[in-house]
Amino acid sequence: MFLCFYVFMLMFKLLKTSNKSKARLTRLTTPHGLVDGPFFMPIATKGAVKNLTADELKGLGAQIVLANAYHLFLAPGSKLIKKAGGLHQYMNWPGPILTDSGGFQVFSLSKIRKISEKGAEFSEPSSGRKYLLTPELSVQIQKDLGVDLAMAFDDVIGYPASKEKVKLAMERTSRWAKRCLAAREQGNKRTKEQNKSILFGIIQGGVYKDLRLKSAKDLTALKFDGYAVGGVAVGEPREKMKPILDWVVPLLPENKPRYLMGLGRPEEIVAAVKEGIDMFDCVIPTREARHGRLYLWSSGKRQPLLPSSEQRLRPNQLKGKFYQTINITNSRYKTDLSPINQTNLKQYSKAYLHHLFATNEPLSMRLATLNNLKFYLDLMVRIREDIKAGLL
Amino acid sequence: MFLCFYVFMLMFKLLKTSNKSKARLTRLTTPHGLVDGPFFMPIATKGAVKNLTADELKGLGAQIVLANAYHLFLAPGSKLIKKAGGLHQYMNWPGPILTDSGGFQVFSLSKIRKISEKGAEFSEPSSGRKYLLTPELSVQIQKDLGVDLAMAFDDVIGYPASKEKVKLAMERTSRWAKRCLAAREQGNKRTKEQNKSILFGIIQGGVYKDLRLKSAKDLTALKFDGYAVGGVAVGEPREKMKPILDWVVPLLPENKPRYLMGLGRPEEIVAAVKEGIDMFDCVIPTREARHGRLYLWSSGKRQPLLPSSEQRLRPNQLKGKFYQTINITNSRYKTDLSPINQTNLKQYSKAYLHHLFATNEPLSMRLATLNNLKFYLDLMVRIREDIKAGLL
Repeated sequence: MFLCFYVFMLMFKLLKTSNKSKARLTRLTTPHGLVDGPFFMPIATKGAVKNLTADELKGLGAQIVLANAYHLFLAPGSKLIKKAGGLHQYMNWPGPILTDSGGFQVFSLSKIRKISEKGAEFSEPSSGRKYLLTPELSVQIQKDLGVDLAMAFDDVIGYPASKEKVKLAMERTSRWAKRCLAAREQGNKRTKEQNKSILFGIIQGGVYKDLRLKSAKDLTALKFDGYAVGGVAVGEPREKMKPILDWVVPLLPENKPRYLMGLGRPEEIVAAVKEGIDMFDCVIPTREARHGRLYLWSSGKRQPLLPSSEQRLRPNQLKGKFYQTINITNSRYKTDLSPINQTNLKQYSKAYLHHLFATNEPLSMRLATLNNLKFYLDLMVRIREDIKAGLL
Repeated sequence: MFLCFYVFMLMFKLLKTSNKSKARLTRLTTPHGLVDGPFFMPIATKGAVKNLTADELKGLGAQIVLANAYHLFLAPGSKLIKKAGGLHQYMNWPGPILTDSGGFQVFSLSKIRKISEKGAEFSEPSSGRKYLLTPELSVQIQKDLGVDLAMAFDDVIGYPASKEKVKLAMERTSRWAKRCLAAREQGNKRTKEQNKSILFGIIQGGVYKDLRLKSAKDLTALKFDGYAVGGVAVGEPREKMKPILDWVVPLLPENKPRYLMGLGRPEEIVAAVKEGIDMFDCVIPTREARHGRLYLWSSGKRQPLLPSSEQRLRPNQLKGKFYQTINITNSRYKTDLSPINQTNLKQYSKAYLHHLFATNEPLSMRLATLNNLKFYLDLMVRIREDIKAGLL
């Protein structure tokens, strides 16, 4: 089944839907190039993937990276980046960029914050300086950065939280969503050339079915270019996360991209793809690399991408099926002269990487990051191959 | 003037001697390739140049790298590296490698050490474990590493030190030099194929003319493949360093490579080249990079490589002549959108690198290191060009 939709200027193609699951093969056309889905976005929060250059990312097969409006607004400032010719030029990344709006960072990083209808008042952790981040300002920041895909500013709430609080934040997110859409139109003639503020709505509602359904209904009534499921992986047990996609995805339009924010482990990504999700980002591959945890394909013959729907959110049961993780700092690797992996780091031994970590050589984190991102990006290649081949 | 000497199996060619100074164009042929001199060796103490891969080093124009026998003996162990196929394979560096013998590290790093005629007893700083590093062991370590150029194990002494102490250490260095040469022959048939322990003697003697002359005389009477001037930059004022080359170089054989250990700033390298030195290593470009200090060519037309012999050891007078240093962490660079340099990092602005340092992004140190090593390696290219053109 080949369908083609034009969503404003964001061209989205649904190339195939699986017969075995809700998995989709998709293609996004952005001002900075194509992105084949399902896809994973390496995290370049402050305008750089930790330890890597943009050239290396390209070499790993990254199609798109994720940066953060909150962080770049604080440093070096979105106006400076605008003056530099936009974030692409500033960070030397020629491909598409998505920015998160800052809603999650206001929730997770700010010590003092006061959420009002107007926006989120917070103090910068280092300087103590006060800021008011509004939906309008968040959209403006993302316009100044010149990113390909922008996110609406949402009111994120952690777990646990009372249903009443989650409801208030969800409703506010819906009201802010309208303000983001209005701000998007401001001073931005949506001609083909100026197509620089493709906007995604973010569905909230915590672990409560009726709130998730209401949020999805509110946001899909608005003309967003794509939809994200937010407010997951904010502290709730993994099994509480499981039903959220079952509730929300059926309400999402088929002709727009779907993004599950902040997840996850490989088996969680596979599971979410089978639920119909197209877009992912996660700190896991890069953050765990810096602590020496490596993601590796299982050796021997190619294993099917699991889990089944019953297993998908219990990673401990699943490890070792199609992949394994190892901690290279473990002393057992001191004398292991086998290659780090069979793809991009076969010229280095595990013993060498162990030594680099043991002696605090900065190259250690870089090689581990190269391994993990290569694994995650190859995982997405395999997912797309398996959807195409009717295996997923 | 083209001369060609075969020094054991180390082929050394003196391609040209300048008419204007004692500067020399040289070529070393090692088991892992050619090295054109004068040359600079980036420092890969523990088997990695900090933040960089071997591929990047190659791309910067590095011909040879320097590693350290003391550090690699302690971790991961020279026997393990031997098992891994040698240091070249272990660190994925296909070109020539020189190792320092560990004499300087015993002097500079060990908390508790006892120097006897037998060798240097020291405790490893982290574990407290005791070791006895002898001339024989140092040579064996370097054989196990399989390096192209090895250094004799010397008794290094700091500044200030009494002349008596410096004399004792210098005399011991001469006795240890003989033991290194004897150890080099042990179990190592010097066939063409097994040519893996080309050995350099290290001239000591501190800031005392008679001791330096004696050391040079002692060592040049032995059949080393090359000679190094050691025990400089160990705390003495720069002007005390100046005469050492004037004393020592005239005593060195013309047909062997000459290595000034651990120096220096660009103008010091130029000055030493003019004194007839062929080989350099220094932590300055990599260490200062990690603190945000960048070495940059002066803008505008190509400036002659200075200093004159009067100026050469007073760096502050000379800065800004053919190069400048800047501290990229200075707030003035926050909004400086000009490129980092005009060679290998023109795609990044100074403002971007400032931002990476300001936000503790690890890519900051990597880009600064790429800048500084490129500068140092290009400096050596310019030095060789200038000797060839009769300008130096």
